[in-house]
Amino acid sequence: MSWEANVRRVVPYTPGEQPKIDGIIKLNTNENPYPPAPGVAEVLRQTDSTLLRLYPDPDAKVLVDALAETYSVKPSQVFVGVGSDDVLSMAFMTFFNGEKPVLFPDVTYSFYDVWAEVHRIPYQTIPLTEDWHIRAEDYKRENGGIVFPNPNAPTGVLEPLSLIEEILQANSNSVVIVDEAYIDFGGTSCLPLLEKYENLLVVQTFSKSRSLAGMRIGFAIGSEKLIQYLNDVKFSINSYTMTRLACLCGAAALADRAYFKMTTQKIIATREAAKQRLSAMGFTFPDAYSNFLFVSHPERPAEELFRELKQRKIFVRYWNKRRIDDSLRITIGTPEQMELLYAALEETLRK
Amino acid sequence: MSWEANVRRVVPYTPGEQPKIDGIIKLNTNENPYPPAPGVAEVLRQTDSTLLRLYPDPDAKVLVDALAETYSVKPSQVFVGVGSDDVLSMAFMTFFNGEKPVLFPDVTYSFYDVWAEVHRIPYQTIPLTEDWHIRAEDYKRENGGIVFPNPNAPTGVLEPLSLIEEILQANSNSVVIVDEAYIDFGGTSCLPLLEKYENLLVVQTFSKSRSLAGMRIGFAIGSEKLIQYLNDVKFSINSYTMTRLACLCGAAALADRAYFKMTTQKIIATREAAKQRLSAMGFTFPDAYSNFLFVSHPERPAEELFRELKQRKIFVRYWNKRRIDDSLRITIGTPEQMELLYAALEETLRK
Repeated sequence: MSWEANVRRVVPYTPGEQPKIDGIIKLNTNENPYPPAPGVAEVLRQTDSTLLRLYPDPDAKVLVDALAETYSVKPSQVFVGVGSDDVLSMAFMTFFNGEKPVLFPDVTYSFYDVWAEVHRIPYQTIPLTEDWHIRAEDYKRENGGIVFPNPNAPTGVLEPLSLIEEILQANSNSVVIVDEAYIDFGGTSCLPLLEKYENLLVVQTFSKSRSLAGMRIGFAIGSEKLIQYLNDVKFSINSYTMTRLACLCGAAALADRAYFKMTTQKIIATREAAKQRLSAMGFTFPDAYSNFLFVSHPERPAEELFRELKQRKIFVRYWNKRRIDDSLRITIGTPEQMELLYAALEETLRK
Repeated sequence: MSWEANVRRVVPYTPGEQPKIDGIIKLNTNENPYPPAPGVAEVLRQTDSTLLRLYPDPDAKVLVDALAETYSVKPSQVFVGVGSDDVLSMAFMTFFNGEKPVLFPDVTYSFYDVWAEVHRIPYQTIPLTEDWHIRAEDYKRENGGIVFPNPNAPTGVLEPLSLIEEILQANSNSVVIVDEAYIDFGGTSCLPLLEKYENLLVVQTFSKSRSLAGMRIGFAIGSEKLIQYLNDVKFSINSYTMTRLACLCGAAALADRAYFKMTTQKIIATREAAKQRLSAMGFTFPDAYSNFLFVSHPERPAEELFRELKQRKIFVRYWNKRRIDDSLRITIGTPEQMELLYAALEETLRK
């Protein structure tokens, strides 16, 4: 026997590449092409660095209060974490603690099965339909919890609130987590359903629509009961997860509603234009409500296109995985970046 | 049955108070009374906030490389996290994954049993001696892992490397974690033992000696094997835990060795003076090598002194817990803050 016998061995999630080279067009991790709201720069300039000697507020009150105001809920209904990955991992740990399998789609955010493995949660994946939709009936079986993104990743497909409510109605004995990382790009949030379902947890992030991937801010909104349970687990792991700077930057991003609206509208407009341009080149894709498109080409393997683009310093995302290995996930960039993408694709397709 | 049947229920750790009122003297959470190195202010001033739209480097290379250089180890021997609490929680989860009990002292950092509970790790506490020391023989029994701080908290008592090595020699089948949060205030780090023991993990923090509690930076140094296992778990939970700002601030703090030496020496000098002053008032305490003292008074209950100080806006730490409920943990502040503390204690003791 050796100390290695006691080690928890896991196969980690592989994040999208964060290349350290200049001059690339980075359309591979769904970052926002626009900088954060101008108030964020002010926070960096004005924060007194001598205060960094002190621990931050363990309750992250500045940020929690700003979220509560923005989403018209009580502060006791808001939980914050180090990106929505931290929030989701903690929610898995807190709420998916039974013996029945947790359900999520077969094609979805590829961190779900990794969290299930690391936290030893039994799970079962449910195939999406041929056209990438969730079928509510599939989630009317015994389970220890349910989680899915809306819009889904990496497809961008949006489900209506009626489907989410149908799933909630059938599952009062499980926590249902709706991962709304991409909801601000044209979807309708299921937050209003919180009034009727105390077992619904809605998770969102500042990494996409708020242009703050670099500050690591995610949050969950739910019933006071759910949030209390989440906080109990959080305070059993790390009292201080959110720095003073993260709280202030997050609050500054929330405060500037006009900037938020302008940048998300620009991304939506660029996405709609991209649908036309890529269609014209022969690409097909599900109709996406996200800041990315999930495209495939009838004549060219996705992996080949991925490599061709990379050679031209354009990074998109490709997975060598069942059902999705013929598609690329392309983040919506600025119109200028997208023109360079179109030119590179046209050149490649001509070859 | 309800969804609550599947909830992981825990009793969280209670961090020291972070009062939001002005004009207090805060000697309750072992923060550094001096600001971080001047280079940290530069980082805040110079960081381009537009970069915050991008995810940080998942490998936190800037910080890991700076730590490797500072401690003369390979970057592959360094793990970083959101404060040493994040690092320790992840190390518990990764390495204490067997069925035998993990061992730690009965009087120690009060987060250890909370992590054991939340991660469902069996554990056994081992009484310290009457004079607050660890006995190596006590750790020569079957176990699933060992963890202790050196110097210990909340006593400040330092153990020699010979004791740590004796424990390591008897425990090649367990991971031994030495939590060196307070090592820079006069102790000798056990980092040199890494050359002989691949199952030793040394954990340190930027929250005390580096004056960066507010940036949440902790780290572990160990064999490449240990660090790889830790990273696998980390990348199974959250790809991006360290913000670009945290990495740059941490590297700036490490770069200024003169400032580090000056501020830690000042704190040590203030602590040694405090030992004399408090002794003269009748307080007793173990000889501490930390940035705090663990004091009791033969004539006055600690809880009463705690309340009296709080009324005078001086916050120290008190636990209503077996074996330590007759003591106060007092963080070493600036000489000026300590004078106010002495005056308040003298006034109280006269009553």
